Amino acid sequence: MEKSEIRQIFDNAPKDSINFGLGELQFDTPKTLLKHASDIISNETIRYTPNAGMLELRRSVANYYAIPFKNNVCITVGAQEAIFASLFSFIESGDEVLIPDPSFIAYNSIVRMLDGIPVSFDLDPRKNFKLDKNSLAKKLTPKTKMLILNDPSNPLGTNLDKEDRAEIIEFCTKNKIILIVDEIYRELYLKRRSRSYIKEKCNVIVISGLSKSHCLSGWRIGWLTSQNEDLIKPIITAHQYICTCAPYLSQKVALKALSKDEFTDISDIRKKIVHNFKIVKGFMQDLNLKFHRPSSAPYLFLKTEIDDRGLAKKLLDNGLITMPGSIFGKNGKKWLRINYGVDEKTLKKGLNILSDTIKSLTR
Amino acid sequence: MEKSEIRQIFDNAPKDSINFGLGELQFDTPKTLLKHASDIISNETIRYTPNAGMLELRRSVANYYAIPFKNNVCITVGAQEAIFASLFSFIESGDEVLIPDPSFIAYNSIVRMLDGIPVSFDLDPRKNFKLDKNSLAKKLTPKTKMLILNDPSNPLGTNLDKEDRAEIIEFCTKNKIILIVDEIYRELYLKRRSRSYIKEKCNVIVISGLSKSHCLSGWRIGWLTSQNEDLIKPIITAHQYICTCAPYLSQKVALKALSKDEFTDISDIRKKIVHNFKIVKGFMQDLNLKFHRPSSAPYLFLKTEIDDRGLAKKLLDNGLITMPGSIFGKNGKKWLRINYGVDEKTLKKGLNILSDTIKSLTR
Repeated sequence: MEKSEIRQIFDNAPKDSINFGLGELQFDTPKTLLKHASDIISNETIRYTPNAGMLELRRSVANYYAIPFKNNVCITVGAQEAIFASLFSFIESGDEVLIPDPSFIAYNSIVRMLDGIPVSFDLDPRKNFKLDKNSLAKKLTPKTKMLILNDPSNPLGTNLDKEDRAEIIEFCTKNKIILIVDEIYRELYLKRRSRSYIKEKCNVIVISGLSKSHCLSGWRIGWLTSQNEDLIKPIITAHQYICTCAPYLSQKVALKALSKDEFTDISDIRKKIVHNFKIVKGFMQDLNLKFHRPSSAPYLFLKTEIDDRGLAKKLLDNGLITMPGSIFGKNGKKWLRINYGVDEKTLKKGLNILSDTIKSLTR
Repeated sequence: MEKSEIRQIFDNAPKDSINFGLGELQFDTPKTLLKHASDIISNETIRYTPNAGMLELRRSVANYYAIPFKNNVCITVGAQEAIFASLFSFIESGDEVLIPDPSFIAYNSIVRMLDGIPVSFDLDPRKNFKLDKNSLAKKLTPKTKMLILNDPSNPLGTNLDKEDRAEIIEFCTKNKIILIVDEIYRELYLKRRSRSYIKEKCNVIVISGLSKSHCLSGWRIGWLTSQNEDLIKPIITAHQYICTCAPYLSQKVALKALSKDEFTDISDIRKKIVHNFKIVKGFMQDLNLKFHRPSSAPYLFLKTEIDDRGLAKKLLDNGLITMPGSIFGKNGKKWLRINYGVDEKTLKKGLNILSDTIKSLTR
């Protein structure tokens, strides 16, 4: 397994580059959560927790989705461990896993590491990244075991539309395919929060966490859940052997973050995002650049006229880190992913590098 | 994969049971480390770290073992993730992994989860748990890929003697077997710290962490390292997909814990352990109970006259949690593992329950 291409881009960046390439917001973590963490350190004994996570936190996650709490929640070391443990628990050698193109690149890598076969289906870039039903139908084989997607999408910054979502759910139900939906960006909506997949009538596992919504990436806290507890049981067992349990302190912080009061904190984060998006949008329109209109932060998927890897390389040389769309699949070719979840000054600096670079290319 | 037997014992324990069953010390975490964690929360931005861990911490781990630092260290979510990631990175379906009997039970479970075949070799209970060379030699097949052991041993509380250690190393070298040594209990020595396996001239991966030595279990921080960086490279890649990185704050705490000054903290912990061991030893001698003489805390492996599962059940009914030796393998039959790393009052209460129960059985 090669070191991921994303990592290579960061490693090759000039010092002091502006970073539009990260997978997290560069905003401050809500202060109340940090204060809470310090209080816990002063007042509690930090030990192992139950493998699946603290009972109150698991209840709180079920409550967040408004689903009954059974043994149907597992607290994980970030959404990343939730993805790994879910795929690890169900994939046997030769099993096929359907993955949209474009998509978060780790899905492919993990499936291959598990001796599964990643099979991509198309979100059509010529049709606003709409699901290509035929592409999906054609990829079904007797070995198709799971379908994994993120919604909102990384790198697209959009949710599947109503029709596409219904299509995916019907497809999974009809063909007895386990659906994993990574909803890590769901709280970072620009206008309206999308409905979780948790209540869809198919075998669905929903994954999320607080790395993005609450700027808690370094705390490594996420979860997975389903209304069908039989789907979660084997994952809890795997999780126990993978890492025993998620960090105690991060679990306590998550419990606080999921309490009603703390959601005011993320509304502040969202205000910044909406503000930043306006800046980016105005800028793109001024430059006459096309982009895929996002419903969720922090990614903007920008259409490029020249080869996206070439453009990303030029931008990197000029001190701006971005992600070429091709990294996320062939349908990302001639697109560029930029993360505008950075402070306003940095945002403007980066956009200027983007502008100068593009102007120098079209001169 | 069944819920582990250990978990079942805890679930069946009466409320307010005395707990000699845990796998960690029940002492306070050194206060300087807690203070340091609070300072970090106040002063630093907690984000993702490099996948393999913060550079300074990796250097610090290499320094702890007095080995050159290359890309040969990976910081993990406790030693548990280090064990999982190491086995995951090398075991292919049908590969055989040699594991001592008795041994930490997770090794077997993880190997089976990975479609590997756990193959046990004997530490002979009639000969003070000395390595049975013939048993080891007989288990070698062309499919033998790895050998994993913990030294000091859970449940035995002892290191392999010089001769057995040399035998294992020669066996692995000669047969091109990767040796994994889990040294998580190495700092909890009663008299003299054992020599790490890191400098042994075979393909060895050493695993450790701070959960036991620094009472930092809930912080989920550990590592794996080798002098051969080719062994570590694939594990870092796996680790990246398993959980991205270990928690930022725990890495900072580990950096502090590994600094020279902080080792005075664990000398306090060790003083308590040595003190507790004296109490336990005196008690066992008074009761005329035989035990396997430990070189490392916190486990005492106690010889039982009756079936160990039956005795553990009786003790559980009387409010004392212990671990029947059979859990750790057939050679643990008629032995009982007790963890004396608890506060003195709890220790004495528990020992009294042990005494009463044994007296009632022999009456």
